[in-house]
Amino acid sequence: MNNESKRMTVAELAALAGGRVAGGGEAGVLIERVASLEAAEAGAISFVEDAKFLEGARASRASCLLVPEGTCETAGGEFAATLVEVARPKLAFALIAEVLHAPRRRAGAIHPTAVVAETARIEESVYIGAGVVVGERVSVGRGTQVLAGAALEDGAEVGAECVLHPNVVLYAGVRLGDRVVLHAGVVVGADGFGYVRDAAGYHKFPQVGTVVVEDDVEIGANSCVDRGALGETRIGRGTKLDNLVHVGHNVEIGERVVIAAQTGISGSTVIESDAVIGGQVGMGDHARVQAGAVVGSKAGILPGKIVRAGAVVWGVPVRPLDEYKRLNAHFGRGRACPCPLLL
Amino acid sequence: MNNESKRMTVAELAALAGGRVAGGGEAGVLIERVASLEAAEAGAISFVEDAKFLEGARASRASCLLVPEGTCETAGGEFAATLVEVARPKLAFALIAEVLHAPRRRAGAIHPTAVVAETARIEESVYIGAGVVVGERVSVGRGTQVLAGAALEDGAEVGAECVLHPNVVLYAGVRLGDRVVLHAGVVVGADGFGYVRDAAGYHKFPQVGTVVVEDDVEIGANSCVDRGALGETRIGRGTKLDNLVHVGHNVEIGERVVIAAQTGISGSTVIESDAVIGGQVGMGDHARVQAGAVVGSKAGILPGKIVRAGAVVWGVPVRPLDEYKRLNAHFGRGRACPCPLLL
Amino acid sequence: MNNESKRMTVAELAALAGGRVAGGGEAGVLIERVASLEAAEAGAISFVEDAKFLEGARASRASCLLVPEGTCETAGGEFAATLVEVARPKLAFALIAEVLHAPRRRAGAIHPTAVVAETARIEESVYIGAGVVVGERVSVGRGTQVLAGAALEDGAEVGAECVLHPNVVLYAGVRLGDRVVLHAGVVVGADGFGYVRDAAGYHKFPQVGTVVVEDDVEIGANSCVDRGALGETRIGRGTKLDNLVHVGHNVEIGERVVIAAQTGISGSTVIESDAVIGGQVGMGDHARVQAGAVVGSKAGILPGKIVRAGAVVWGVPVRPLDEYKRLNAHFGRGRACPCPLLL
Repeated sequence: MNNESKRMTVAELAALAGGRVAGGGEAGVLIERVASLEAAEAGAISFVEDAKFLEGARASRASCLLVPEGTCETAGGEFAATLVEVARPKLAFALIAEVLHAPRRRAGAIHPTAVVAETARIEESVYIGAGVVVGERVSVGRGTQVLAGAALEDGAEVGAECVLHPNVVLYAGVRLGDRVVLHAGVVVGADGFGYVRDAAGYHKFPQVGTVVVEDDVEIGANSCVDRGALGETRIGRGTKLDNLVHVGHNVEIGERVVIAAQTGISGSTVIESDAVIGGQVGMGDHARVQAGAVVGSKAGILPGKIVRAGAVVWGVPVRPLDEYKRLNAHFGRGRACPCPLLL
Repeated sequence: MNNESKRMTVAELAALAGGRVAGGGEAGVLIERVASLEAAEAGAISFVEDAKFLEGARASRASCLLVPEGTCETAGGEFAATLVEVARPKLAFALIAEVLHAPRRRAGAIHPTAVVAETARIEESVYIGAGVVVGERVSVGRGTQVLAGAALEDGAEVGAECVLHPNVVLYAGVRLGDRVVLHAGVVVGADGFGYVRDAAGYHKFPQVGTVVVEDDVEIGANSCVDRGALGETRIGRGTKLDNLVHVGHNVEIGERVVIAAQTGISGSTVIESDAVIGGQVGMGDHARVQAGAVVGSKAGILPGKIVRAGAVVWGVPVRPLDEYKRLNAHFGRGRACPCPLLL
Repeated sequence: MNNESKRMTVAELAALAGGRVAGGGEAGVLIERVASLEAAEAGAISFVEDAKFLEGARASRASCLLVPEGTCETAGGEFAATLVEVARPKLAFALIAEVLHAPRRRAGAIHPTAVVAETARIEESVYIGAGVVVGERVSVGRGTQVLAGAALEDGAEVGAECVLHPNVVLYAGVRLGDRVVLHAGVVVGADGFGYVRDAAGYHKFPQVGTVVVEDDVEIGANSCVDRGALGETRIGRGTKLDNLVHVGHNVEIGERVVIAAQTGISGSTVIESDAVIGGQVGMGDHARVQAGAVVGSKAGILPGKIVRAGAVVWGVPVRPLDEYKRLNAHFGRGRACPCPLLL
């Protein structure tokens, strides 16, 4: 959050979203914020994702409603709001919100309480907040904002237009691309969890690799991404991680992957592009989730297991969703198994 | 912790707890700390929750024991400790500990290394620790203590008598009531996890709502409470969250709810008052746990699922406890199902 | 990470690891870093854990390879790398990495932005980083490094040669032994999760104990170890915890225990020495995992449950691994139970 608002006309927003003003009020109405149907007041824009909810939206006090294409004709009666037809109302709503509520951009500045090493390369337009600590040879690209209390250890590289929220920690040498957002308390580059045992106890397996976070990645609060043991841990372009996610050493995550909260990924596991991973999922080491697969929340993937491209899997250990449902349907009837002898 | 001790007589403590001095030593004995039965020494008070443990408590070196009502008469022989009968010994012990070991109150002061915006409204009795960063238009109520390294972003509101432990982060505009305790590393108000996909990848669904944490809430270390997407995320009065809990956007938690460690709650889910939620529970979005329900540890609640008021549920997905036990009894015998053909 | 490299000859490394130079190149070759077989270049040492992978290692460009004893004779043909036979190649590799890539040691210094109480006892060789806050009567032993933004509250004790990574928080009075490593964001000593309910709501059960972390313990990023309610929470010598682990009040963990990411341990549970605990495991309160037991990832241990010494258990609730496998084999065939009537 911490957004800055601006005002635009319905006509301008319709153009922005590739839609057309199709009914109700006027195209010149000024819109200054997004809102839910229920909470919207004058000046707000809201959306109706499906035509079947259109009637229910009639009571909304929004000044503008984004609605599915072709729904205005069939919607009888009057709407107080100006209606804008778009192909995908929720997507249009998100795109409009990006403009109306653009994330706050702090002007380039280094707070006097920040501690920045002389060898660090900080572009002029960078914002470095209070109490931030920037180590030797760190580089920070233009327009990036590093907020209060973050620590960037020696040699870390941060691209352009990133936002590092308060108390983020980058260990030495990790690399972030452009437009990366790390929420408060995220830790990138701590040692992976690898040890070798002998009679005396555990010796650390070397954790001397690094982490690469590609462009447009967003990572939720207090999540942890460990450095590679020997090679690198990588999170691909456009991937989004929720809060409290654990990414082990040498994990490789593709592009446009989403991973919900509290999921944990063990060392050397691969998640290919466009996969969708639920919350509290656990993945053993050296597993592979192929492109576009969907892994249900709380699922458990055994070490070395391969989830096929496009598959939808659930359960511990994972199995195809239809099989999982069959299993649970049985259980749901209050029986341990569907054996007719027990009826 | 970080408590300050004081000394009181057994008689004073008995009065405080609504009990009566009923046997053993003298009512004038000075007590200065709470302790377990085993570790107690002279000057300590301990408790016996159930009459059947009374005999075992005879060996305790505590100076005072809180015991259930009516147990002193039947307890033969002598106790070294002064006995105080109360209706609920453990509760009395907790209330007495609140007095003997009142949480430390630091005198009002702003540490010279703190960075406080000129537009912030900080009451005189507030303690702002070293390295704390307080943004524009933040308000902090009387008696509140903000410890080292915390960051309060623009417009955040903190009530009276709160304690924000080191490195807590409040994102812009979130609101805390009175007597709220946030343990170290808690993040309140990070963006919720909501995106809309198109061919190019994921666009952030607007996360422009806020968080309201009501009076007397306590949140454990490194837990995360996301801001509402459009509306608000709310945690009701007197609710207690353990460590590493995830609360998604627009979640609504009632009053006097307890949630154990590492539980995750997806967007828009509602937990009504007086519910008890175990650890590592996962809740899908738009679910509802009705008033007073109990959800066992590691349970999984599907999106949209309603857990009825007062129900006790376990398992993934959740089912009533008695059904869950039946299932596990079968499994526990080492068979996959109770089918007699397999005996 | 943040390691410092040095160079040694193959002969020196062989001596260090108790191995012998057994074939391939020369014993005088200089080695300056560890690497994987695939990524290794000149100057790197790598390892082959098992003789069956020896052929595959022939293509590696490493200057030195650690191989199992007795494998050089049978390995036909030439290796570009100098081969060193050792009893346990992976262990030797770890020991060599500890020397080639010794963790960085910052010279003793207190950063001018650190805030250190006058009553704190800081040894001369201690490094205190930027923005660190050290409370009254804290003690820090020789050679310890406390990195940016960490907070050590009153009376905390830290031994010698420890590393506290950025933003670690030690609550008042907790004690760390020697050579303890706490990764970024770790919180030690927050209040345990214990309350007593009455009509008005929840009262905190006193959380006035402490935490003891013994020598050579390492704790992963953003993990939380709560203080004892009345006694202490203890983590034994040489134990290793991964990221985002939760350790409740009064938990007692023995020596040389390993606990993978996101595992949670409820109050008063005991894990005896040499146990191995997977990720996302949940343990109820007052349970006991006896010495050397292995608990599979995502397992759930009920309150009060005892896992026998040396047992290998899986599942929710835990059962012996062979039984768990039998159960899952059935499920794996796509049937809810092995009842032949359903074939």
